[in-house]
Amino acid sequence: MKLYNPFQRKSIAQRDEKHIWHPLTQHKTNGPLLAIKKAKGAILTDENGKEYIDGIASWYTSMYGHCHPVVINKVKQQMKTLDQIVFSGFTHEPAVILAEKLLKILPQNQDKLFFNDNGSTATEVGIKMALQFHHNQGEKRKVMLALKEGFHGDTFGAMSVSGLSVYNGAFEDHFIEVIRLPKPLGHNNHEVIQQLQQLIKNHSIAGFIYEPLVQGAAAMKTYSKDGLQKIIELCKKNKIICIADEVMTGFGKTGKNFASDYLTIQPDIICLSKALSAGMVPMGITSCTAEIYDAFYADEIEKGLFHGHTYTGNPLACAAAIAGIELLTSNEIQKNIQAIVMAHQQFANEMRNHPKVSEVRQIGVILAIDLSVQMQRYGDLRDRLFNYFMKNGVFLRPLGNIIYILPPYVIKMEELEKIYAVIKSCMEEVVP
Amino acid sequence: MKLYNPFQRKSIAQRDEKHIWHPLTQHKTNGPLLAIKKAKGAILTDENGKEYIDGIASWYTSMYGHCHPVVINKVKQQMKTLDQIVFSGFTHEPAVILAEKLLKILPQNQDKLFFNDNGSTATEVGIKMALQFHHNQGEKRKVMLALKEGFHGDTFGAMSVSGLSVYNGAFEDHFIEVIRLPKPLGHNNHEVIQQLQQLIKNHSIAGFIYEPLVQGAAAMKTYSKDGLQKIIELCKKNKIICIADEVMTGFGKTGKNFASDYLTIQPDIICLSKALSAGMVPMGITSCTAEIYDAFYADEIEKGLFHGHTYTGNPLACAAAIAGIELLTSNEIQKNIQAIVMAHQQFANEMRNHPKVSEVRQIGVILAIDLSVQMQRYGDLRDRLFNYFMKNGVFLRPLGNIIYILPPYVIKMEELEKIYAVIKSCMEEVVP
Repeated sequence: MKLYNPFQRKSIAQRDEKHIWHPLTQHKTNGPLLAIKKAKGAILTDENGKEYIDGIASWYTSMYGHCHPVVINKVKQQMKTLDQIVFSGFTHEPAVILAEKLLKILPQNQDKLFFNDNGSTATEVGIKMALQFHHNQGEKRKVMLALKEGFHGDTFGAMSVSGLSVYNGAFEDHFIEVIRLPKPLGHNNHEVIQQLQQLIKNHSIAGFIYEPLVQGAAAMKTYSKDGLQKIIELCKKNKIICIADEVMTGFGKTGKNFASDYLTIQPDIICLSKALSAGMVPMGITSCTAEIYDAFYADEIEKGLFHGHTYTGNPLACAAAIAGIELLTSNEIQKNIQAIVMAHQQFANEMRNHPKVSEVRQIGVILAIDLSVQMQRYGDLRDRLFNYFMKNGVFLRPLGNIIYILPPYVIKMEELEKIYAVIKSCMEEVVP
Repeated sequence: MKLYNPFQRKSIAQRDEKHIWHPLTQHKTNGPLLAIKKAKGAILTDENGKEYIDGIASWYTSMYGHCHPVVINKVKQQMKTLDQIVFSGFTHEPAVILAEKLLKILPQNQDKLFFNDNGSTATEVGIKMALQFHHNQGEKRKVMLALKEGFHGDTFGAMSVSGLSVYNGAFEDHFIEVIRLPKPLGHNNHEVIQQLQQLIKNHSIAGFIYEPLVQGAAAMKTYSKDGLQKIIELCKKNKIICIADEVMTGFGKTGKNFASDYLTIQPDIICLSKALSAGMVPMGITSCTAEIYDAFYADEIEKGLFHGHTYTGNPLACAAAIAGIELLTSNEIQKNIQAIVMAHQQFANEMRNHPKVSEVRQIGVILAIDLSVQMQRYGDLRDRLFNYFMKNGVFLRPLGNIIYILPPYVIKMEELEKIYAVIKSCMEEVVP
């Protein structure tokens, strides 16, 4: 047995290395990990006391800021009363209150909520609803339709409808059958619709899954609202179930409660997660219309949706989500969202004229800046950008040559200004 | 707008019906749901104040009892400090402490932990590790091997390796390729091994997934330890990655920390969830050996495992899991486990001689009783059993004609005796 030597005490980061395999990480080429010790509002603090502004709200979850007292109090009370209960055969008040509050802000045609645990499962449930909707009516529709470059999660079903990636090479032979449509970008809307008409003729398409208006993991790629509207109209005309994946876009990020609110036609199914549970604990929800629900409501037991996760409807997650919706719909947060949108607009205009910028996209509090760097000059640009931001106390995760911001709604104006300033100085100091 | 009338105030159960689609539930044939208002230790209380003994620890999650103060305090402290942080590029102390504590009790060959969100994702990660392990070495192995009647989750990958069910008819065309081996039951061990030798000759098997010693969702079906040991030995000899799904069996339920501890040969990968996070919030972990991890550790980025969920490594879930392991390894809980095992043994012996019982299976705190009811006399027996138990203040979920108990470790002896008594009286009053 070794004696404890305080002078050899290891950092959290060093202890991490010995035991933990991190997600989406090639540990051999990745630099050392940074241990975060605490978080409050928009500020993260590492184990050495250095502070960082959380410019992406910890993957778009902590939209009301970290460790918000309203969320903490709701979860604390819940934890003392009812921590967990089987959600098959039982229900509980936090789930019911959450359902009532959520359906008030979801697009009007949404009628029923199916609880699950994260974004991937929200997608899997959406896909299963679409496939079984047709199956229950004796119709054989086996193909899913998705947009190119989309991302919907990492479980096998969710991976299948996501855009193909070199990182999924080992699994492609196991994907469910999916056909992919180019994004409508305005100028090509007509061609996309023509292509879709052909695809509908040649395939038995069960459902269409898409991230409405903006594709998150593709680096905040926006696309044509009118084009999407036309795709959905054509799908609906052909009884193709439309699944809006609002895991990233949901809960105010696009400037409206849901990106689907920008359209006049509403999806059959909506997938929710991330900001849903206010950055506190994992949770997913798949909502749907009465028409979808009714197709599973039958005397034959097997027509039900036999999907379930053990912690489904977890009361603590429901409590956090209730607090989140109360915050989202508060005047304070709504005013904050508008303030961020206006600040973003001004910064976006400035960046559009920058000689090293090729495109700027903004929708709501989401702002993406494409750098006009040629591929051969890329090298380790992404890592140099990331390191520069972190050195300067800003947490952003550039994707290739794209820098994006998605700040928590509670970010202070001076913190947001600091993010802008660090991006501007990186243009001079890092971008070739 | 309707005026609020306190005399028409609806119950939680009635409000639930309007908005929530429950898992694994055919709402048309299912009776009304029961709203649970609070839970403490082994006791659930519904919205009318009636109490029930939680005879299955809320699907084997709340093994240390509901709303345990040690778990609550750990989560409460964590919630104030750090609620959530991106687990790609960052780490945090609760994840590191959990990893250190968990690896101390896992089978010795386990070396690295990959965090995720629930049992299904723990399985999906295990399958992806097995497939990509071979892919990274340039070997094309595309088939998974599983035991008949197994259950591993409800996402597409997890569904595929689970036993085929009438409830999955809509999805079978989308399953990954899986071959199924009968369970070794002692008398057929030799045939099972011969069959496996043939399968290995005819297929390129990447991995073998199994619930060690007892299949949970199949109604606590136990099988031959020696048979499983031989299957694993043969798999390892043929470089088939062995994945122990300990989502149900883990954390003391079989009388040892993990069911795999009963074998002298250890799995390459272990899937964990349920009791992992002490019945507080969702969490999954997939652990593996250094050999598995090393096959992904490379200069080529794409050899990494590009799987990740947003809330992966959630600090609150880690805090709950740390509390859980501290409780599990405490003298008090270990003594409780032994007391339950002994009480079960006595009750099992009594039941074995009952004329209406065909088989009794016990391992650790898991006890299953098969009723010798002929199929034609089944009818709604399962529902009548369930209703009888609930009427008498005991929450058990019989599966067909099988009654099983899996009580929380903190159950009081008089509560356990009451469960036994209600089962005995149901034999007279309900079982034909």
